[in-house]
Amino acid sequence: MSATSSASAVSVEDAAAIRAILDRHVDARNRHDMDAFVADTTPDADWINVVGMHWKGRDNVPQAHAVMHAGLFARSRMLPPERSEMRQIAPNVVIETHVGRLEGVGLRPDGKPYPDDGNLMTMVFVKSHKGWRIAHAHNGHIDKLAAPYDPAKDRS
Amino acid sequence: MSATSSASAVSVEDAAAIRAILDRHVDARNRHDMDAFVADTTPDADWINVVGMHWKGRDNVPQAHAVMHAGLFARSRMLPPERSEMRQIAPNVVIETHVGRLEGVGLRPDGKPYPDDGNLMTMVFVKSHKGWRIAHAHNGHIDKLAAPYDPAKDRS
Repeated sequence: MSATSSASAVSVEDAAAIRAILDRHVDARNRHDMDAFVADTTPDADWINVVGMHWKGRDNVPQAHAVMHAGLFARSRMLPPERSEMRQIAPNVVIETHVGRLEGVGLRPDGKPYPDDGNLMTMVFVKSHKGWRIAHAHNGHIDKLAAPYDPAKDRS
Repeated sequence: MSATSSASAVSVEDAAAIRAILDRHVDARNRHDMDAFVADTTPDADWINVVGMHWKGRDNVPQAHAVMHAGLFARSRMLPPERSEMRQIAPNVVIETHVGRLEGVGLRPDGKPYPDDGNLMTMVFVKSHKGWRIAHAHNGHIDKLAAPYDPAKDRS
């Protein structure tokens, strides 16, 4: 962390609590249990998926995921999060990023395979009296054809 | 906003301040002025671009953008943000999402055109004694071939 950083380190306890949510979340996803999938989100959580669909609120997020899990993702499995990083940007607010990988995804509606390069996920966690919750998620494909051109790949 | 929402409405003053940052940001980008581009970010801001490149910190973000603006984006122009939405998820923390569109982007390294469907951007803003700052940005392409299959498109 640089000397000019404005973020605070995440405490060991908070990091463990957030990691536990990530693990529960993957488990719920792999059981296609959409109620469990959103159990750790705030009521008004936004969810933006890898193709730019923007789902708003705890009602829409599981319904939208359920449709996907009845089709494209029916036999898919998410591997444990890789390269998880956390930054506390304000009291009780942590931004977590990780790489997520899926196995067994079906063909997309256009007949093309789902990219297997992994996805880069941003999750914004907020702590309340109920503990840490996911307030916002933004997922995106990692494009392995673009990666060699990353101008910061040797620095960050 | 639903009755069960845990987020607070963004005040008129805060919304105006954040909108002013968005406008300055687009202006800096279109002048290819990378110092101005990161003037409103926190020192340790993360920036995740549309192909999953993950740039970390105020040093890396402008350098990486400068390389892209010397090539692919040299003659590009960003249009004003569309569909900006803000949610205050904690004191002094606002999540803003918007659709951004670029004109005049060059061909990608693989020779294919840059998608013109627009990008969906998440920005996380934090307020300090210096005012609002961008602490995290995650951008992603909107895939217009996928959009008709959005299971929530008639609801959210």
